[in-house]
Order: sequence, then C-alpha cells, then structure tokens
Amino acid sequence: MNVAKPRIRKLVVIGVGLIGGSFALALKKARLVKEVVGVGRSRKNLNDALRLGVIDKAETDAAKAVVDADLVLVGAPVGQMPGIFARIAPALSQQTVVTDAGSTKQDVIAAARRHLGSHFPMFVPAHPIAGTEHSGAAAAFPELFRDRNLILLPQQETKAAALRLVRAAWLACGANIVRLDAAEHDEIFGAVSHLPHVIAFALVHQLGKRRDAKRLLGFSGGGLRDTVRIAGSSPEMWRDICIANREALVPLLDGTLAELEAARAALAAGDGEALEVMFRSARQARARWLLKKPQ
Amino acid sequence: MNVAKPRIRKLVVIGVGLIGGSFALALKKARLVKEVVGVGRSRKNLNDALRLGVIDKAETDAAKAVVDADLVLVGAPVGQMPGIFARIAPALSQQTVVTDAGSTKQDVIAAARRHLGSHFPMFVPAHPIAGTEHSGAAAAFPELFRDRNLILLPQQETKAAALRLVRAAWLACGANIVRLDAAEHDEIFGAVSHLPHVIAFALVHQLGKRRDAKRLLGFSGGGLRDTVRIAGSSPEMWRDICIANREALVPLLDGTLAELEAARAALAAGDGEALEVMFRSARQARARWLLKKPQ
Repeated sequence: MNVAKPRIRKLVVIGVGLIGGSFALALKKARLVKEVVGVGRSRKNLNDALRLGVIDKAETDAAKAVVDADLVLVGAPVGQMPGIFARIAPALSQQTVVTDAGSTKQDVIAAARRHLGSHFPMFVPAHPIAGTEHSGAAAAFPELFRDRNLILLPQQETKAAALRLVRAAWLACGANIVRLDAAEHDEIFGAVSHLPHVIAFALVHQLGKRRDAKRLLGFSGGGLRDTVRIAGSSPEMWRDICIANREALVPLLDGTLAELEAARAALAAGDGEALEVMFRSARQARARWLLKKPQ
Repeated sequence: MNVAKPRIRKLVVIGVGLIGGSFALALKKARLVKEVVGVGRSRKNLNDALRLGVIDKAETDAAKAVVDADLVLVGAPVGQMPGIFARIAPALSQQTVVTDAGSTKQDVIAAARRHLGSHFPMFVPAHPIAGTEHSGAAAAFPELFRDRNLILLPQQETKAAALRLVRAAWLACGANIVRLDAAEHDEIFGAVSHLPHVIAFALVHQLGKRRDAKRLLGFSGGGLRDTVRIAGSSPEMWRDICIANREALVPLLDGTLAELEAARAALAAGDGEALEVMFRSARQARARWLLKKPQ
C-alpha cells in the first residue's frame, strides 16, 4: 500500500459540491492529503460532507478556513468567485496555492487577478471536464475525474511551484492534463457544454410549462430522457456559467437558432431532402467525433 | 416449457430493421409464430436478418411475400407506407391482419384507408414506443419492447379479431398496451420524440460543420454525448417522420425557437435572474415527470 507522506497537510475546499467533494475524496484516496476543511453556505450539505468523510472539518467563514492551508480549491459557482477571492485574499499565507474548478475561465482569471492582488502568482486556474447532473457533497465520488480532461491555464505570472502542486493533485485524481488558452477554453466549452445545457433547459421548460405536461411527458421514451438529462443540473451554477460566458454563448445560440429556423423552413415547405441532408451530416459528425470518447 | 401451438403460422415483416426485427425475435421467443418472412430493399440487411435468425426466409417482393400470411407488420419508414400498402393490397388474403409500427399515425391511417381499400378493417394501426439510436436487423433484440408502451389506434371499421391478434402479439412482446386517438398521438410524440430529434440533429449539425469540429468535439463530455445520442438515428426514417407530422411539429419548433430567443435575450441583457427562473422550472419539470420512468 502506498503510504507516502502527504504533500498537502491542509486542503481547503470552498464549495463542497460534486466537484469539490470528489476532488477531496480522490486526494484522500491517493493519500496525498492529511486534512480537508470544507467551506460552504449550506449547513446541511457540510453535515453530509462530514458524515460521508468527504471533509474532516466544516467551516462557514472562508477567510478563517484558509489560514495556513497548502492548497485551496474554489469549487463554488463562478458568480461567487470574485467575492470569495476578495474575502480570502488577506488571510492567505505566502505558501498557500489557490486553484479553482470554474467552468468559465476568462472571468475567473480576471476576478482572481483583481481580488487576489499580490497573491495572484500563486493562483492556478483549472477546469475539470467531469460532472453528472447531480450536485452536492452526497453526489461526490473519488473516481469522477479518472481519465477525464483537466484543463490547466497557468498565466505568465503563475509560479512554477504552484503549478506543480496543482498538476500533481489532478494527476493523482486520474485526470489527463491539457493546457488551453482562456479565450479558446471559453469558446470550446461554450459550444460543447454551455450551449447544450441552455438547449436542454429550454426544451424541458417548453414542454414542462404546458397544461398537459404530466400526460405528455408520461409518454416520453429514452430519447427525450437522455436529451434533457443535463437539465437536472444546478440552475444557480448554470446561470452563473452562462452569464459569465455570454460573449461566446450569444453567437453560439444564434447559430442554433439559425439551424432550427432552417429546419422549420424545410418542414413548412415539405422539403424532405433538405431535412435529410441536415440529419445525415449531423449523424456523420456524431459518428466521426463523438463516438470514440470514453463513457 | 411453453409449447403452445403457434397462433401465427406466417408472419411477414416488411422492413426488417430494429423494430420489425425485434418484433419477430420477440414473437419467436414467445413461440407465437411459426415462420417469419422478411421483406426489404437491402440484400445485406436481409442476409444479416437470416444469419441472425431474425427471419426464416427473405423476399424482395412484398406482394409475393404476403400471400397467405396471418400477420403482416409494416416496419418501414412512414414515407414508404403508402407505396407498400398499394403494392400488397391486391395480394392480401381475406384473413390476413395488417399492422404497422410507424411513428406518425394520422398519415399512416389515411394511407392505409386509401390504399388497402376493402381490406382496411383488417388493418390495426400501432406504434411501439421503443428504439435505440441503432438501426438495421443486426440491432434487433427480443426484449426491446418489454415494459414499453405500445400505442394501439383501432379505427371504427377495425375488426375485433384483427385487433385481438395484434394486441396478443404485442402483449407477448412484453409491451403495455395504451390506446390513443391519432391526432393526440401525433401531437404527443411530436413533442416528446420528433422535436427532440430535430433539436439533436440541428445541434450536432451546427457544431459538426465548423472547421474546428474535430478539436471542438474532442473536448466534449458526457453532457453533449447524451444530449445528441438520438442524432445517431436513421436520417431517412426521421426525415419521413418529420415531414409526415409537420403540422404538429412546426408549432412545436416555434415554441422551442421562442424559448431560445428568450434565453438569448436574457443572456444579452446579462439578466441572470430570468435565466435562473427558466433553468429552475425546467429542472423541476424534469424531476417531476421524467425521472420516474423506467430505463
């Protein structure tokens, strides 16, 4: 058994949800961390996290929690990050490395630069490409990041030692490290993640608000269920992501509107050929680029 | 072991795909059928069906195949059904029951009424709510319909004996029989099935046609993969369904466009509250009406 000396004596997870909780569990399993302090707004969620061994100690004051930490992971919705950075900045010790798990990066990096001030070189922006439609500490599990991409976005100022620690932690979680530029990151995940979420929420909203929603949805099969699985995700988290990344998301949404308008025009004209061309090319794209991915 | 005498000496399946093939396999497994004759356009698919024991005999001429059949299942794309009905009508024996598995019902019933002529009372319109994104005889399996809804739509003229046989066959497949009016059927499945398919095809089409599609989709996670799983379905089949049900589908698509326009307006205005209201209500609808369904 691997009993290597923990490299992280104190890990602070701010926002002990699916991501933050799974990060803590994975590092515990890898015996890389000695103590995990969880910070959150919901007492119930913190109690769940304590009971399930996700964290060892619960704290409601982020500034108090981060004192003498080796690593702080900010796993809160991105809209809360500026406030969290501002709150913890004065309490950070010089050696404390800060990282995040936010789904948008340009806004988080700008907020960290502004609010962490002289501590910014110890901040390592990151984004694990993993998740389920469940949220909260109770949904966390240590294998969540295995074989998943972890996007790392060190900035010019980022200290090598800080980068090394964050890299090592994510490698211990089983993730594949990938580097991206923040603007490219936001465009890519706007397209492959944020846009599908908006579409799934919009479709369920449309059907769910009908008077006959119960009867209607009672007839649905596996197709609709899979299509809107991600509409089970946290509304608050996704509100924040969409607002933070709206510069990329609005043109993407315009692209979807144009596709659906084209499908509508073909339908209204009874133009089966135009529809088939769209369907066939979509099916080919899926077969070519979406089927080889690991589940 | 149940060795009851087969109630169907000769079953003819026109269109030996996922649905038609699974129907044949389920009835064979239930020992309800003696001989299955498969009719199709693709020699390769018929050979697969023969090799896999889905059918016992292959035939390319539907009119020749249906002679002396007890039951004929038309499992072809709905756009082909008028031609198939017209082709088989003169060859049907008086006792032959005809049924279908089309995803749209008003058009199929109208086509049967027109082309089956005096045989129309022996036609029992039906729609099994089952499927995967795979097509062809090789994708068929006998458990496909177990615990799934089978929509039965007998018309005023439909003979009781014909209805009894089709009902018994689907019960033997493990399906739950549900009756619906054809117009209500088309509205319901327009909403919970045809609309999500159009949306999934449109989204993959949008992303797949980009120059950076390969790199972009390489970063996708399980969210996008599930959202567009049904974009792997047969383009021809879905072209036919969408065109056949366009009267219901166009207003539904308008509803989706309105939802996405609302999301776009909220995003452009930075109105997080409006987005969150939509997301939250969608999430609630999903939890209330979509999570209790069997997988």
